[in-house]
Parts: sequence; C-alpha cells; structure tokens
Amino acid sequence: MGVPMATRLVEAGHDVRVWARRPAVAESLREQGATVVAAPDDAFAGDVLVTMLPDDEAAMALIADGALLRVGTGKIHVNMATLSSGCSRELANLHAVQGVHYVSAPVFGRSEVAAAGKLAILAAGDPDIVRRCQPLFDAMGRRTWYLGGDPGLANIVKIGGNFMVASAIEAIGEAMALVRAAGIPADLFADIISNALFDTPVYRAYAALIAEERFTPPGFRLELGLKDLRLALEAGDERAVPLPLASLLRDSFLEAMATGGADLDWSALGLVARRRAGLEGPFVQ
Amino acid sequence: MGVPMATRLVEAGHDVRVWARRPAVAESLREQGATVVAAPDDAFAGDVLVTMLPDDEAAMALIADGALLRVGTGKIHVNMATLSSGCSRELANLHAVQGVHYVSAPVFGRSEVAAAGKLAILAAGDPDIVRRCQPLFDAMGRRTWYLGGDPGLANIVKIGGNFMVASAIEAIGEAMALVRAAGIPADLFADIISNALFDTPVYRAYAALIAEERFTPPGFRLELGLKDLRLALEAGDERAVPLPLASLLRDSFLEAMATGGADLDWSALGLVARRRAGLEGPFVQ
Amino acid sequence: MGVPMATRLVEAGHDVRVWARRPAVAESLREQGATVVAAPDDAFAGDVLVTMLPDDEAAMALIADGALLRVGTGKIHVNMATLSSGCSRELANLHAVQGVHYVSAPVFGRSEVAAAGKLAILAAGDPDIVRRCQPLFDAMGRRTWYLGGDPGLANIVKIGGNFMVASAIEAIGEAMALVRAAGIPADLFADIISNALFDTPVYRAYAALIAEERFTPPGFRLELGLKDLRLALEAGDERAVPLPLASLLRDSFLEAMATGGADLDWSALGLVARRRAGLEGPFVQ
Amino acid sequence: MGVPMATRLVEAGHDVRVWARRPAVAESLREQGATVVAAPDDAFAGDVLVTMLPDDEAAMALIADGALLRVGTGKIHVNMATLSSGCSRELANLHAVQGVHYVSAPVFGRSEVAAAGKLAILAAGDPDIVRRCQPLFDAMGRRTWYLGGDPGLANIVKIGGNFMVASAIEAIGEAMALVRAAGIPADLFADIISNALFDTPVYRAYAALIAEERFTPPGFRLELGLKDLRLALEAGDERAVPLPLASLLRDSFLEAMATGGADLDWSALGLVARRRAGLEGPFVQ
Repeated sequence: MGVPMATRLVEAGHDVRVWARRPAVAESLREQGATVVAAPDDAFAGDVLVTMLPDDEAAMALIADGALLRVGTGKIHVNMATLSSGCSRELANLHAVQGVHYVSAPVFGRSEVAAAGKLAILAAGDPDIVRRCQPLFDAMGRRTWYLGGDPGLANIVKIGGNFMVASAIEAIGEAMALVRAAGIPADLFADIISNALFDTPVYRAYAALIAEERFTPPGFRLELGLKDLRLALEAGDERAVPLPLASLLRDSFLEAMATGGADLDWSALGLVARRRAGLEGPFVQ
Repeated sequence: MGVPMATRLVEAGHDVRVWARRPAVAESLREQGATVVAAPDDAFAGDVLVTMLPDDEAAMALIADGALLRVGTGKIHVNMATLSSGCSRELANLHAVQGVHYVSAPVFGRSEVAAAGKLAILAAGDPDIVRRCQPLFDAMGRRTWYLGGDPGLANIVKIGGNFMVASAIEAIGEAMALVRAAGIPADLFADIISNALFDTPVYRAYAALIAEERFTPPGFRLELGLKDLRLALEAGDERAVPLPLASLLRDSFLEAMATGGADLDWSALGLVARRRAGLEGPFVQ
Repeated sequence: MGVPMATRLVEAGHDVRVWARRPAVAESLREQGATVVAAPDDAFAGDVLVTMLPDDEAAMALIADGALLRVGTGKIHVNMATLSSGCSRELANLHAVQGVHYVSAPVFGRSEVAAAGKLAILAAGDPDIVRRCQPLFDAMGRRTWYLGGDPGLANIVKIGGNFMVASAIEAIGEAMALVRAAGIPADLFADIISNALFDTPVYRAYAALIAEERFTPPGFRLELGLKDLRLALEAGDERAVPLPLASLLRDSFLEAMATGGADLDWSALGLVARRRAGLEGPFVQ
Repeated sequence: MGVPMATRLVEAGHDVRVWARRPAVAESLREQGATVVAAPDDAFAGDVLVTMLPDDEAAMALIADGALLRVGTGKIHVNMATLSSGCSRELANLHAVQGVHYVSAPVFGRSEVAAAGKLAILAAGDPDIVRRCQPLFDAMGRRTWYLGGDPGLANIVKIGGNFMVASAIEAIGEAMALVRAAGIPADLFADIISNALFDTPVYRAYAALIAEERFTPPGFRLELGLKDLRLALEAGDERAVPLPLASLLRDSFLEAMATGGADLDWSALGLVARRRAGLEGPFVQ
C-alpha cells in the first residue's frame, strides 16, 4: 500500500523522502521522484511523517527508543495503518510527551484504489493538525472523514469496517455453499449477487473469488483478516459490546488457519463453509 | 408488492384480471386499468396466472381443493412469492398432475423498485414455458436470471439472497453498537458505510435506518425476515449444509420477537445488538 | 429400548402382549414370557398400550387410519418416545376424539439403564390416568416426575434434557481439542473431567468415547441427536426462546452429517471439533 | 481460597508463614497457628512459596523487581492461581534465570472444598520438584494430576475445565428459559436435571441457583468467569483451535457485564438467557 500512496504524494508535487524495509520498494519510489533515505529518522526531516506499518508491534517498535520522536519535535506524524484503538491512544500519549503531533488516519481501499488516489480516509486527532494534513489526504484519497480528537476513534471505524467486509465474505461463502449443494452454478449465483443484490465492489470481488475458488495469490492475507477480527473483538471487549458475528468469524478464520489457509486470501472463508458442507469438487487453486 | 407489479403489466399493454383479498387493493388496480374479478378462478381465465402470496401456507391453500388447477389446464401459473424450495417442488408436482405449467419466479426489490419495473427476477421451470413468460418479466423487471428446470432452484437463490441481506443488517447493527459505545455519532458512521465501504442501496438504506433507529413503519416486517431465515436453515438442513451465520441471525430475530419487535422493520436487529451492549440513548422510534 | 422396558414389565408380573416391527425383537420378548401378537391392534387388547417409536412420523403413522384408536376406546395409551411437543399435543387431541386416554412419558437412560429398571420417567397427561400407570412406571423406572396435564410438557423436558447432554458433548469435544493441541494426553484429560469436575455417567461416558475416538458402534446415532436438536430449536422457535447453544450444536451435527458421520455415535461432535483445529492423529474408529 | 488452603497446611503440621494483602485475612490465619509476616519476601523464608493471586497481572507484579526471586534462589514457588498458559511459561523462565524452581498447580474446587482438603490439584513442572511438593498437595487436595514438565500445561487444563463449567451453566440457562416459557416450574426442572440427568455438584448447584435466580452474593463473580473465558479463547487462538462454544459464552458474559451483571454470580448467564426470551417474572435477587 505504501508505494501507491507515496507515488500519489510525489505526483501532487510534495517533496517526499522515503524509507522502506525492502530496498526494491524504495528503489521503485526513487524512480517516481522520491528521495530515498537511509533511516526512519531521515524520513522525519520534513514537516510530516507518514507511516504505513503492518501492526501494533511494528508501530511501537518504530518509536521504541524515543529517537524518532525527538527528531520530530514540533512536527506531525500521520499513522495510516490499521492499529488497535488502544495502541493508537498509547502512541498519541508517547508523541505528546515529545511534542510531536499525532494523527491517526487509516484508510479503506486496496492498492489499486490507492494508485488512483481514491482512498477513503478516516482521520482523528487535533482538528487543526488534521486540517494541516488535508492536502496530503487530498492527494491520496477521494474523501476524508473526521472522527474526532481521540486518534483511537479512526481506528475503531476502520476495525468496524473490516469486520463488516469479513461478514460479507462469510455470508457469501455460506450462501454459495447452499446453492452449490442445490446444484446451482456458483458463477451464476455470483452474477446474481453482484447485479441483483449488492452492486458494489466488495461483493462483486468476493462473490467472484469464492465462486471461482481463486484464493491465491491473496489480495489480503487471511492471517491479516484474523488480526483485524481480533482487534474488533478486543475493542468490543473493552467496551462490553458483544459482537456475536465477529466471534463467529474469528472461529472461521481460526479453522482456516488450522487447515492450511494462513496464506490464502481471506475470501477462503468460503472454502471453510464449503468443507463444512462436505462438498467436493474441482477446487481451482 | 402485487399492486406495482400488476400496474406494470397493465402499463405494458397486457390484459390483466385481478383478484385480491383486500377490496381496496383491487380497487386501486381497477383505476390503473385492470379488470377486477370475484374469485381466483376468474383470474385464471387468461393464459397466465401470476400469484404473489405471502407464504407456503397461502400458496398451498390456493390450490387445496384442486378447483383452480382444473380451471387452468394447459395454462401457466407463475408463482413470484418467496416459498420454501420444498413447497415449490410440491406445487410443481400438483400442477403437473392437472396439466398446468408451473414457473417459480421470486424477485429481489422493494415495492418502489417494482413500481419502476426494475425488479430482479429469478426464474425456474420448463425453459420453453419460462421463455413464454419473458414479456411479463420484462414488464416487471430489469433482468431475469434463469436457474434451471426445477422450480425450487429459484426459491433457493431468493432465500440465499434474503439471508445475505439479513447478514448485512446484523453486521451493520453490531458495528454500529461498537462505534456508538466508543462515542462516534451513528449517522457519521452510516455515512462512512454508505460511501466508503458499501455504496449500494441495501447498505445505504439499512445503515440509515439503524443509525436513526427508524424501525417503524416497517419496510419489511421482522416477522417475515424470521420466516425467510427459517427457510434458509431448512434448505441447509435438507442438504446438510451448516449455516452458522443463518443460525446466529435466527436467534437474533427470535430475541427481537420475544422483546416486542415482531412488527418492527427487520433492521431492528440493530436494536437487539444495541441492547445487548447495554447502550441507553434517545431511541427515535 | 423397547426390549428391556417390556422385559421389566414381564418380570414385574404384568401380562404383556408385544408387537414389534422386527420379528427377532418380538421373538426375544417371547422368550422372556411376553405374548407376541400379529398387529398393533392386538397389542391394544389389554388395558394399556405402551409405545416406543422413533419419531413423530412413526407415532402419527400408527394411528393414521384411526383403527387403533377405535380398538382402544376407554383405554390408555402411554407414549414413551421422544416426540415434539406439538406432535404430542396433536396426538392427545386425536386420542380424545376417540375416547382414548393419552399419556406422554418419555424417559432418560440408555438401554442398560432400562434393563436395570432404573429409567427416569417424565410423565404428563390427566393426573388420574398417570396415577393408574404408576405400577408400570415403577417396573421400568427408578423415579417418575409428573409435569402436568398437557402431554407436551413431558416432551419439552425430554427435549431440553437431550439438548443439555449434547451441550456437554460439545464442551468436552472443544476442550479436548484444546488440550490435545497443547500436547496433553486425551485420556488423562478424560480422567480429570470424570473425577475432578463432573463425576457423573454422562461426562464419564462421553469423555472416554471422545478421548478414545470410539464413535462406532453408536450408543446413540448422531442422526438421532440431530433430530432431537431440531425438536429443541422448534420448541424454542414456537415460544420465541432463542437457544444460541442449540443453534451451534445443530450446525456441528450438520457438519458431522455432511462429512460422513450420520451413523457414528453423537459423541462424534468431538471429531468435528478436532478436525476444525486441523489436528491429525491416530483415529481409532 | 487462600485462607482454607493455608489452614489445611497448618493443620497438617507444616510451618506456615503468611502474607496477605488484607490484614483481616492474615489475622484469621494467625489464629489458626500461622506466622504472619510483613512482606512477600519474608513469606519466602521457608523452602516453598505457595501463591494464590487473582490474575496474570498480580502474578507478574509479585516478581516485577526481581527481589522476591533473589530471596528464593534454590527454593520452590508453587503458583496455584488460574493464569494464562503464556504467563505461566513466562514466569517459569523468569524463575529459571534466578535459580528458583517453578511449579504450576491450579485447582478445581470452591472454598468449602478447600476447607475440607478435597481440592483436585493439577500440577506441572519439573517432576522431581513436583514430587517434593506432594505432601503440601496431600494436605490441600484429595488427588493430584501430573500434567508434564511445562508449567503452562496445568493452566490449560484448568482453563479448559472452567470453560466446561461455564458451558454447563449456559446449557442450564437456555434449557431453563425454554421450560419456563412452556409453563414448567423452574424448580421442578432443576430437580430433574440434578437427579435424572447430571447427578453431580456442578449441575446440582447451578440448576438450583438459576431456578431460584439467586445470583447474589456471588460464589464466583461473573467478571472472573469472563476472565477465564478470555484465557480459554486466547489459548485456542495461540494454537489455532476454534472454540465456538467458548466464543458464544464470551458474548453472553459480555452481555451480562453490559447490563449490570459484573458482580453477580456467573450463573447469571441464566438471566441473560431468560431476558433474551422476553420472560418476565418474580426475579428473586
């Protein structure tokens, strides 16, 4: 995701310094016009640091020794990753101590959406600071929603949204198992789902993937889907909000993990539903 | 639903005889140009009988004494209601004995969609007979999917689709309870769902209804939603297809029924999710 | 079940006429001292007819043509099978029309318990009539609980009890999968369950069966367990009582059915739990 | 729990030093013959330190600064609390570094069972060290099960057992809601459960508590039950073992928490089941 997002910033005329764990990633951005730097600290030489790291652990590791934050005193850190709301709040506190402004801005949209600058951006943090980031958001996204002063709020919405996408996948998977068992062609049902019921990219994409059992290469790894479900359940647990559908999803994800699905696309929830129904057939993967 | 569907047929130039249980319904159709008849038998004076009855019982009652079918020998009966696949097959057999062609053609779309002639029609039965019905389907719908020779197949798809809509409602309801508990305004979240994630009528409508807690008057009564979930579970049971999400939904529907929600819109699943989280607030209904 | 129950009646000195669908069954009872008759009607020559039929359908078939009830006018029919409460009430009405007293008396206990005359008997129906049956119950059971005048009440308790046993099996199965995954020997855990936590026959038996994966020959066929779960859910549905644990069990039963488990013992729920966790191993069956 | 356990040790002739957070607790043990000390370090003056702390956090806090472990070099620490298996393993490592032997020995049994010296003890750790602790276990328990060298194994069994008890409570609660809805007296059903189906203390106790709706004072606080369910789910998650029944329980616990039940007995799961069915009535608490 980082590459298309940074590319959009370069294209919008921003002066972009890039640090990436994998050299090839950095190199491809250099070709787009970004300046590749040797360490995260150098990336914070500008006014705003934008990070897109995979999870809570990576986010905390970045600032573990405090050096990065000291470099950035008075500057802005925009964290666009999917984190737990608890981690997001903890990060905000650590930043405040060092005088760094912290903005949480997770996004909805896959990498092709990022490449088109059409991400949906969920922003939370000090309203004045968020306003100063708006030109960056405009370069990367089609619209920004402001959630409030607590950075964790943007993460809650992102987590809730991913839970809803996983719910849609589970529903498609179960319904597809039912119609398959009745002898209805899966691709015909996918066509009906996509045109008669839910004419929107999420359903269109996952109905096709499940009908064709095209679970690899993964667009979003099942293991990451499980991580997000855990964040949803954790967020619910902290607030005493029962989420029975999220619980059901977590168990389906675990079953997929336990039976070899960790590296499949998270639409492989449909494979779990099919196996439970004892349905044999020409698996495409 | 019957009124806009019959109106479309009249508007398309078909000669329409109408029988309805409620006189006011028949009267409104007379004003549209239909001929109102005194009994179901008279409605079968034309080539094709189109019925839209609420459930299995009503469908079976219609032909209980066999009179109607004898009237229709050699003609076509198009049953557009949401029935169980078992009932659909049983009806097909009863019709075959009397020499009446039976077509199952349930639809997706609410009454305003029917009024615009934009229903999605799922048709199953003898392919030649379905082809002869196509002009009627074209008057009422925007597209017809042909599912196969067994009339029950169209019902399975309809049932599977309604299960998916109910799943979307449950997901919205749980996610909405979570974000409410975190202090995020429900209408802001509904806006994000509808524009950033699922830009499609089902989500748009139900996200708004749940955010505003506008569960009455019902667009689709919760009790009817429960009926459809039962059909989905029954269809799964007959084919040994576990549908854990459908099971979860049935329990939420039952809880809504038990706590006074039978006559609310089925989006009141969101109210159940909210209550489970102990959330108090200004309920709009 | 019928054989040990009839044997106990013979041993207690009652004059027993027997009709059984399988000749071998009748023959074994003749050796115990019962009179074998040619038709159900002949079995109703005595004062009381005791039936132990597998399901609603068999129970209804018995009296379908009314002949049996006419034979029994003024007599008592004690139905000891596990039926739905709805069927039980319907039977009561049909009997009343013919002037036959109807008592519902399902039991808890496997066949070895029946052979020892130690069944737990749940009786419902007219209290005077139930009282007249007490000598029969005393021959077959160790204790009789009177549930009330509506025969369906005894069935509700029987159904609720079977649901609780299935719940215990599921809990053992899931816990066993967890400890196996951690590397703890299953038989050691079964010993702890049986001695440290639940020192009672149901847990003792099922913990051992699941630990040893001894699912065949079945003590109680999984398919019958599914039947009983359906009755529980149906009873809940009629009264708007959500039973989420029963729903979960039904899905596990269906998964077992779909993957070849119909004829295994219902403790094969433990096999489903194990498979979901991807656990391989020396399956004993 | 600590008081009856320490009392048993004193009665068995052991020289017992006691430290407790609440002075009254320490005082009551002084009266039994124990020596009350001022700090945890002093409690470790003997050969073996036995701790019974409420959760992972309290266990970790005890050794946070390392002082306690340095006092105990060469000695044995027997941790009898319900911890996560992960925490148990982490503690084992921290102890090993300081040369302290670590034994995990959680127990089954309420305080009256502890007072009678009848606990079921689950022990794990170095087998020679566990053997040296056997006289202490014999004073407190009726039987000790040895689970293996990894201290976390004992915790897995304890967690799995508590999950099974919670499952039994949920099953009783749902079945009780069903029979209540049918008009059967709850105490009659509790009697049947306890005598006809599960003649064992766990069912006997919880069937009575749920029938009488006697949820306060709590024998085991619902909030602690939720803690244990979280440990079960966490243990399953680490090993990719789906535990759908544990997930269902967690949601019921959260619902109870959200609706005011944190301080009730965990049998208040039965109250949740009853509310979901919309059942009103004379709540006893």
